[in-house]
Amino acid sequence: MQPQEIEAFLDREFPQVSGYSVTRVDGQGVEMRLAVEDRHLRPGGTVSGPTMFELADLAMYAAVLSRIGPVALAVTTGANIDFMRKPAAGRDLLAECRLLKLGNVLAVGDVLIRSEGAEVPVARASLTYSIPPKSRRN
Amino acid sequence: MQPQEIEAFLDREFPQVSGYSVTRVDGQGVEMRLAVEDRHLRPGGTVSGPTMFELADLAMYAAVLSRIGPVALAVTTGANIDFMRKPAAGRDLLAECRLLKLGNVLAVGDVLIRSEGAEVPVARASLTYSIPPKSRRN
Amino acid sequence: MQPQEIEAFLDREFPQVSGYSVTRVDGQGVEMRLAVEDRHLRPGGTVSGPTMFELADLAMYAAVLSRIGPVALAVTTGANIDFMRKPAAGRDLLAECRLLKLGNVLAVGDVLIRSEGAEVPVARASLTYSIPPKSRRN
Amino acid sequence: MQPQEIEAFLDREFPQVSGYSVTRVDGQGVEMRLAVEDRHLRPGGTVSGPTMFELADLAMYAAVLSRIGPVALAVTTGANIDFMRKPAAGRDLLAECRLLKLGNVLAVGDVLIRSEGAEVPVARASLTYSIPPKSRRN
Repeated sequence: MQPQEIEAFLDREFPQVSGYSVTRVDGQGVEMRLAVEDRHLRPGGTVSGPTMFELADLAMYAAVLSRIGPVALAVTTGANIDFMRKPAAGRDLLAECRLLKLGNVLAVGDVLIRSEGAEVPVARASLTYSIPPKSRRN
Repeated sequence: MQPQEIEAFLDREFPQVSGYSVTRVDGQGVEMRLAVEDRHLRPGGTVSGPTMFELADLAMYAAVLSRIGPVALAVTTGANIDFMRKPAAGRDLLAECRLLKLGNVLAVGDVLIRSEGAEVPVARASLTYSIPPKSRRN
Repeated sequence: MQPQEIEAFLDREFPQVSGYSVTRVDGQGVEMRLAVEDRHLRPGGTVSGPTMFELADLAMYAAVLSRIGPVALAVTTGANIDFMRKPAAGRDLLAECRLLKLGNVLAVGDVLIRSEGAEVPVARASLTYSIPPKSRRN
Repeated sequence: MQPQEIEAFLDREFPQVSGYSVTRVDGQGVEMRLAVEDRHLRPGGTVSGPTMFELADLAMYAAVLSRIGPVALAVTTGANIDFMRKPAAGRDLLAECRLLKLGNVLAVGDVLIRSEGAEVPVARASLTYSIPPKSRRN
């Protein structure tokens, strides 16, 4: 699936989620952008942990979709996240997801999140997704 | 800190977060309730992963506060979560947090989340918190 | 499976692993003991991280076996571990595993490891196992 | 520290650990090799989970040492690992560790493990290390 197709699918399947766009799809995975707004922030202007969790999770979901097509039933079975640095105030977040395994039953990927304009990652995550039976290729 | 004190502190420090209440504080940790509403749901009525992540994170934060007092600067350094079962539609979530370690620098806890009315956990999580220097007891 | 059956199975399938015994099997899960010896230690006499990882992993495997019988092909897909306190020198380790989910495809459990004679946990872990197709109950 | 210095330090501080060599140190982190032998294997010839855990852990430790010098007291506080594919029989393992954060108190890194001769990762891991007070740079 191409970036706009993935976004259209996400808009349709998850209408309450907004602010996310797919900036790149390639052989390794995807890059996703979050346009940070007030509802994503904690007092002091820092992006909340659950928001960064959601960004990592959606980036992984987009990476899976980019390979197996519009499968709504792929679900997160597990996730692990480290919050390493405070994101830069007033900046969008960019999440780079590498799809490390796309198996018949499970998919595994990792994500580095950074503030736009900076190279150092603010958070890292790894996610495991369950691939539903109808989408299994064997 | 007692349940109402913890809630008052959370309301003050994190006004954008709502729906959470502390139902119990004891020697092991705390229990926290989330009054589930539409904004917490994905299509199909299931509670979203980021919502369950936030519930686990706040339960751990409340557990830390219950021991060291109103410390706003304790922050999540890492978290791990497994989504095991679909939560029951239309039910509140209850999160039981055990504080496993309260060190000078780091705190570690685990959380089991279940739907009210059911015993089987829908998710499990573990969290690590950083304890800020002023609150270090040695 | 009962404790001695599980141990016999482990001895047969994993002859290079030794020192482990199953001390209890119940409705929640299992308890496993590691008789700590020099090969498990780092300089200074502390039990090594990989040893505690192996103990947690075997405790989870034993918990899965106790429910679905002697299945050699159940394998660890993921694990998460926090090292919280130094184990007591010269003491055996006890690992308490709770089986939190035994699904058709995945099993999830958590483990608390403590030094014999002490109540505070030295490490916590969570593990996810893949259940092979032949053993799937539906 | 350079590769041979790191290996000499590891040999001195952890004499029971063997088979590991540092193949590269650069701005991103390190690469470490494990010369796989019988004691690392489960029946069927596959490298054991605890062995891959140890490899990831040592790669991270080497990455930390490469930046802050010979600090024996840096210890693993947490680790997360996914086993994705069976390693190739009879092949060495190579672990690539990226040091993502080297803070005053905590260091965070991730690791991809692959079989020599293959590009696809057999396992991924993330590790958190505690930096002892004397080595803190502020």
